[in-house]
Amino acid sequence: MKRKIYLKMEPLDVARDILEKTFSGCRTGEEEIPSREADGRITSRPVGARLSAPSFHAAAMDGLAVEAAHTFGASDETPVTLRAAEGQAIPVNTGQPLPEGMNAVIMIENVLFRNQDREIVIRAPVYPWQNVRKVGEDIVATEQLYPTNHLLGPADIGALLTAGCPTVWVRRKPRVMIIPTGNELIDGSEADIAPPPGKTIESNSGMLAALAARAGAIPTVSPIIRDDYDTIKQHLRAAVDSEADMIMINAGSSAGSADYTVRIIEELGEVLIHGVTIMPGKPTILGVIGGKPVIGNPGYPVSSLISCEQFVQPLLARMQGLALPEKKLITAVLGKNMPSSGGMEEFRRMITGRIGSRFVTLPLKKGAGAITTITRANTILRIPASSEGENKGAVVALELLRPLDQVERTILCTGSHDLTLDVIHDFLKRSDPAYPLASTHVGSLGGIMAVKSGMTHVAGSHLLDPATGEYNTSYIRQYLNGQDVTLLTLVHRQQGFMVRSGNPKNIRGVEDLLRGDVTFVNRQGGSGTRVLLDYELDRAGLSAAGIRGYDFEEYTHMSVAVAVLSGKADAGLGIMAAARALQLDFIPVTEERYDLLIPTEFMTTPGIMQLLNIINSNPFKKKVEKMGGYSTRETGNIVTQ
Amino acid sequence: MKRKIYLKMEPLDVARDILEKTFSGCRTGEEEIPSREADGRITSRPVGARLSAPSFHAAAMDGLAVEAAHTFGASDETPVTLRAAEGQAIPVNTGQPLPEGMNAVIMIENVLFRNQDREIVIRAPVYPWQNVRKVGEDIVATEQLYPTNHLLGPADIGALLTAGCPTVWVRRKPRVMIIPTGNELIDGSEADIAPPPGKTIESNSGMLAALAARAGAIPTVSPIIRDDYDTIKQHLRAAVDSEADMIMINAGSSAGSADYTVRIIEELGEVLIHGVTIMPGKPTILGVIGGKPVIGNPGYPVSSLISCEQFVQPLLARMQGLALPEKKLITAVLGKNMPSSGGMEEFRRMITGRIGSRFVTLPLKKGAGAITTITRANTILRIPASSEGENKGAVVALELLRPLDQVERTILCTGSHDLTLDVIHDFLKRSDPAYPLASTHVGSLGGIMAVKSGMTHVAGSHLLDPATGEYNTSYIRQYLNGQDVTLLTLVHRQQGFMVRSGNPKNIRGVEDLLRGDVTFVNRQGGSGTRVLLDYELDRAGLSAAGIRGYDFEEYTHMSVAVAVLSGKADAGLGIMAAARALQLDFIPVTEERYDLLIPTEFMTTPGIMQLLNIINSNPFKKKVEKMGGYSTRETGNIVTQ
Repeated sequence: MKRKIYLKMEPLDVARDILEKTFSGCRTGEEEIPSREADGRITSRPVGARLSAPSFHAAAMDGLAVEAAHTFGASDETPVTLRAAEGQAIPVNTGQPLPEGMNAVIMIENVLFRNQDREIVIRAPVYPWQNVRKVGEDIVATEQLYPTNHLLGPADIGALLTAGCPTVWVRRKPRVMIIPTGNELIDGSEADIAPPPGKTIESNSGMLAALAARAGAIPTVSPIIRDDYDTIKQHLRAAVDSEADMIMINAGSSAGSADYTVRIIEELGEVLIHGVTIMPGKPTILGVIGGKPVIGNPGYPVSSLISCEQFVQPLLARMQGLALPEKKLITAVLGKNMPSSGGMEEFRRMITGRIGSRFVTLPLKKGAGAITTITRANTILRIPASSEGENKGAVVALELLRPLDQVERTILCTGSHDLTLDVIHDFLKRSDPAYPLASTHVGSLGGIMAVKSGMTHVAGSHLLDPATGEYNTSYIRQYLNGQDVTLLTLVHRQQGFMVRSGNPKNIRGVEDLLRGDVTFVNRQGGSGTRVLLDYELDRAGLSAAGIRGYDFEEYTHMSVAVAVLSGKADAGLGIMAAARALQLDFIPVTEERYDLLIPTEFMTTPGIMQLLNIINSNPFKKKVEKMGGYSTRETGNIVTQ
Repeated sequence: MKRKIYLKMEPLDVARDILEKTFSGCRTGEEEIPSREADGRITSRPVGARLSAPSFHAAAMDGLAVEAAHTFGASDETPVTLRAAEGQAIPVNTGQPLPEGMNAVIMIENVLFRNQDREIVIRAPVYPWQNVRKVGEDIVATEQLYPTNHLLGPADIGALLTAGCPTVWVRRKPRVMIIPTGNELIDGSEADIAPPPGKTIESNSGMLAALAARAGAIPTVSPIIRDDYDTIKQHLRAAVDSEADMIMINAGSSAGSADYTVRIIEELGEVLIHGVTIMPGKPTILGVIGGKPVIGNPGYPVSSLISCEQFVQPLLARMQGLALPEKKLITAVLGKNMPSSGGMEEFRRMITGRIGSRFVTLPLKKGAGAITTITRANTILRIPASSEGENKGAVVALELLRPLDQVERTILCTGSHDLTLDVIHDFLKRSDPAYPLASTHVGSLGGIMAVKSGMTHVAGSHLLDPATGEYNTSYIRQYLNGQDVTLLTLVHRQQGFMVRSGNPKNIRGVEDLLRGDVTFVNRQGGSGTRVLLDYELDRAGLSAAGIRGYDFEEYTHMSVAVAVLSGKADAGLGIMAAARALQLDFIPVTEERYDLLIPTEFMTTPGIMQLLNIINSNPFKKKVEKMGGYSTRETGNIVTQ
């Protein structure tokens, strides 16, 4: 183990610049491919037409081919009669060759047949070459169809075939070798095999291969290699000697004791950059061996992704003369303070939705280790290295990760967590159009406060008023005084203690939490479950002070369940569905009501109306009842406040 | 042959609506695929995590695993010493499991080793679970990772693998059978085989297949079938009975005598729409047989493309729950009057570039038969059916066909045509960044007028002043009085008569054009070549009145050459390079100077500077000299006006 040392750390723009300059002339070779397979490829030389199109004078309309001179003078007053038998008019269809001697076509709509079609009467003249597609009108043989570096699309395939070019010279797709390294990694391609303790499924290579393919490259993923100096060196040398145009070595770039990548690149070639002042993505290595780019890509999934997007994808595109799509930007109001320590450019994953006339945005967790922070996000907020962060209410620019219309239709749901929200999300995504449901879990009170500040469409809440035994209404009166909100019941659900299978600590009720041999896992302050626990303790005349783990807080039912399953705690309070999901035992404590709180102005927006349809539907209710611990007997009821 | 009859003609939006409603429930089935291959696919059911991630408590930093309680109270004043031998601190790297009994990690940067690493001094405490990635922090087993209809991206592949899902259920890609019909069509896959007279290379299927693939489908192109009732019926029935999810029958939808498609669809199923009021794309047929969509796609290439984009691609996307990217819009000033007859929505192909602070746009030819009108365009102007067109100077909305930055960098070149412009285009596209050169051919005077009205960056001109024998300068004084423009010489080039090989009509000079057995093809008024012809006639004391074909005008050197090659004319005046390209004989008449006229304000823009670099470079000059008929002796010289 050693301290992390980045000898060649640079800001993002400097690092990108160095990479670009080093490989500015680095283009892949060319190859001749069938034009029918050329969509998305780049021409590697000018393309000349081999044939003219049309290659003959062709009728541009269905009608009669004529010599234009025969029609001159025709009008309503002085119709002209052409005689078929004398060859003065010959029927032609669109695309057919113009018969010899003819130089115009009269549209079939403009003629009158008489005398068993032997006489053709016309009341207007045609001029020479009217309704005729002349030789070369579209393409002239030998003309330059495309210059070098033209991005070929579907219409270009049509033009190439038309011009007698069944093949075309294009830039070869770059080949990328992706080498995952790490002693802790195992291959995850076998289904249903849980990794042994201490082992992790190797997952970055799949993501990196897809990112490389999106940049037009052909990725190859090598087997996982061990974090061993000789092994890495041998594989890297072989990769550089292979046909690969670029090598990515993944996870070998953390500066822990297993970090040999920098040393090996330095020995075999040159390290251009070691460390970039971005977060996630800092431990990126950019190097060159034998003229080929060698990228040390960080191990944490989000770091791996951002590093690949910032360095690998642009370089791969450049090698083919391809332009990557630009990131689209929107502006949104920030719903939370986001301090930044400065010195590093941060890429924060955000959930954004439209509320009324503006977009609002909320951050997901910061950690680069959580891949779900990027899969759940629909936008990215970049906080510059020079910034100390952004304050709640600031208008910030966001990069879109999803199409704008999906962000527009996103329903924001902030507040307490319940598993039936996932069911709603699934039903909403099966609607037409689909409405993504983006839920962030900040507890019931957090949800009410989000409604107050206009930062959410929906808030899930199950706050018990100990004085009245009522749910939510007194809190709404207290915090949302005067705001027009609608409260409707989503479900009734069982709350109880989750304990390991077989209930080894024999927990029966709240009083057992005070036993010296029992460790508890709590929910955060402001959550309905925390309020419920305090209520139950109070009712039993017990003090929280004696509970081991009362201060150990988790933010969702599932993370409480995990804490119990992993042995970190012996018991936690939560919903039956979470216990069932992880095969924990469940000791019921009470049934509570879980409501959705919605500003009334949103009740008639298309997304919320669809959400209400779903909640009131039988398929939804059936699915929820099947989960266990839920009752839908009042689902959809509007609660009088 | 019969009149075109569209029994079920509808506007675009009505037709799209009918198609959408008819196939609203039409989704492809599902299939289980490796998650590593799932980029761009759509989930067909909710996806649940099978494993938690992390699956063990893992170090989030390189450092020492400790029990947090041992560190409480540590400060600069009261450092705490941990003893390695007693197991109070155990080295761990990022990602490694936390040793049994430990619940926090101290960063390696924050410790001081002493006494040969046996003592570890710390000056700040860590709290429980600090720098630890807890079980399930990212993903909890059983939780819903994705709802139905989620578009999977690269990061999702990482999340699926991490969550123990090496495979995923996705919507099957729809299979599209593309059937080209037409007696005049031949297969163009063999290189260098020119089609026999009256035959045309089948090219639409390649374009349609690429469009279908872009909408996520798997296209299959059947062999070309004959325009024969029984043949088409038999193939259509077989296609409907096959695994295909959609059938496209191409070119069978023109309402000429070969049109059986509508009748057959009506017999086997139902015609929903026959004819759409769009241009190009009118003869579209939308039908349904056995529940499967059957699309009659028009034969003209641009009609075929637009019909496919408007009907086939959206339907294919819909079948998978996929969203097609929206067309991006820009606004531009129209450089030309564009009348529209009304009643039909027109899709006009446009060339657009930025001139100063605004985009300007010019139409390409209207004809649906010219595939190059779509391959050369970078934007589309849609003129609604209710409109009578747009006037020059109007601000219009355009759909982008190319990335915005490419449109931004487009150099507009309007005026006289010269083949060296294609060479410049090739060099500009090989520059970094690339500058597309979009040339429209309106003759020298047209180019000068485009400079006057601010509609072009560059104008090619070779206008001879008969009074002085000078090129261009007197015209510039006359038309651009006071405007600051720079005139520079591109090339000197041979102008002469193009005649068929062997010069069968024995043409020696202008006087031969007046012979009764000679047909001439002229250039349009305002073109430099037309001015040159008139000058030469005048010098010889001849009158244009006696020339057969003096009024038969073409707009480019190449189309004049084609007119001669195809026998439409015996002679035309033009440049040597055009004659050489089509192996015509060339009788020199004179050498002329061809200049580029550029508003001086653009001379220092990046695009024009790059163009000037190219013109002054040796590789460019060498390439031009090799074309024949050109001299570069004054290339790049600035002409004193």
